Amino acid sequence: MRLNIPFNHPRRESLLIREKLVDGFRKGIVAPEGLIAHGRGECFDYILGEKTQEFALRAIEAAAAAILLANHPVISVNGNVAALVPEYIVKLAEESGALIEVNLFYRTREREEAIKQHLLSHGAREVLGVGEDASATIPELFSERRRVSPRGILIADVVLVPLEDGDRTEALKRLGKFVVTIDLNPLSRTARTADVTIIDNVVRAMPLLVEKVRELKGRDREVLKEIISRYNNNEILQEALRFISHRLVELASRELRIRV
Amino acid sequence: MRLNIPFNHPRRESLLIREKLVDGFRKGIVAPEGLIAHGRGECFDYILGEKTQEFALRAIEAAAAAILLANHPVISVNGNVAALVPEYIVKLAEESGALIEVNLFYRTREREEAIKQHLLSHGAREVLGVGEDASATIPELFSERRRVSPRGILIADVVLVPLEDGDRTEALKRLGKFVVTIDLNPLSRTARTADVTIIDNVVRAMPLLVEKVRELKGRDREVLKEIISRYNNNEILQEALRFISHRLVELASRELRIRV
Repeated sequence: MRLNIPFNHPRRESLLIREKLVDGFRKGIVAPEGLIAHGRGECFDYILGEKTQEFALRAIEAAAAAILLANHPVISVNGNVAALVPEYIVKLAEESGALIEVNLFYRTREREEAIKQHLLSHGAREVLGVGEDASATIPELFSERRRVSPRGILIADVVLVPLEDGDRTEALKRLGKFVVTIDLNPLSRTARTADVTIIDNVVRAMPLLVEKVRELKGRDREVLKEIISRYNNNEILQEALRFISHRLVELASRELRIRV
Repeated sequence: MRLNIPFNHPRRESLLIREKLVDGFRKGIVAPEGLIAHGRGECFDYILGEKTQEFALRAIEAAAAAILLANHPVISVNGNVAALVPEYIVKLAEESGALIEVNLFYRTREREEAIKQHLLSHGAREVLGVGEDASATIPELFSERRRVSPRGILIADVVLVPLEDGDRTEALKRLGKFVVTIDLNPLSRTARTADVTIIDNVVRAMPLLVEKVRELKGRDREVLKEIISRYNNNEILQEALRFISHRLVELASRELRIRV
């Protein structure tokens, strides 16, 4: 942390998350482009009021049910996710039996390795998709982004891809995966392509998802299937957009100029 | 540029701008935090449809008039602005007689110097605010951010601060400056504190501002004063928010899911 952020700073929470990401960047976990992508998320979070909304809670429930029903669930981890919520990736894997796979937009061997070490140091038992392990390929735009683990994403039925790129999400859908994402932008291609879109900050959503998986774990499979069947992702996206636009209209009706 | 971004990628333009910024980062011009801030802007640009809207054109006209009416206009330049539009900073200075001053949130001697060299290599005659030249101080939160040039911002009457931090903008207002900003977020403190807020991408707004300064340069001072007096920044901010919220409501009424 380079700055002492005052306790009364209006955006303290957001600045602390940002510093966590910049730390990850200095450790070689986060790519420079990952910092830009984070900023885009920050802005949507600002509009959402930096709180988990009802539409996110409903998506979290569906996500938990899908992960618990899966035969082979995989958590796809990129640099930003590893930097922000390493402990919850590990907890989710433990609670649900999902495997963890590193999956980078800007893939370098150093960064793969740094992310793997970071996750192992937070208690992960195994981290797929690093080096030789990413030996399978899926059809995608950029050659380095095709690589996946033959023990992980290649054979997964449910994939959790928090903060994922649109091309990649579409590729996973074309392969027939059930895709769960966490994305603050309800208009992103990832948000619109996934089967379950949790429109929330990954920092708030991941602990809630772990908790929900714990809660639903003992339940009958029929109950979990019922949760999925009554879930409608298009409705969730529409609600998020309506929420955002109402908040902006409300803000727009006020005197906006700050006089100093 | 590290990736060959396909010509048909739906967000090609935005990805190319992003790469320009990452290039600036590798050259030591852009701070890591500047990458995050860029992403925050990207989000609003995405919602604005990545086009210059009517409310931005009106603000550009008022900005051009204010800069032309000023006795001592200064263009305050940070790393992101220098990386994205160095040629237009130089052109605006030439057309308007404004001085260029480097002004960083995270000030280091190396970065000041890198930005100065970058601007000089794009044809700037003089770049203030670097090293010893930033010997004056203005009251602000963090010590290194108080420093300004006694020949530049300290004595300026009109300051153009594209992509500026809220604290800094408020400090400039408290000093009685007429502040013009370019900011994609109509809700940012900078947008809400400035006298003229151009809600647009700096990459589109700066060329338009240069053009407008050229067009208005020969006009009578009374005409320019008239432009300023009928300009209302609160209206501009409200219009931008209304535009954004209408776009979101419109989008929310559609089928959002993308089927692949």
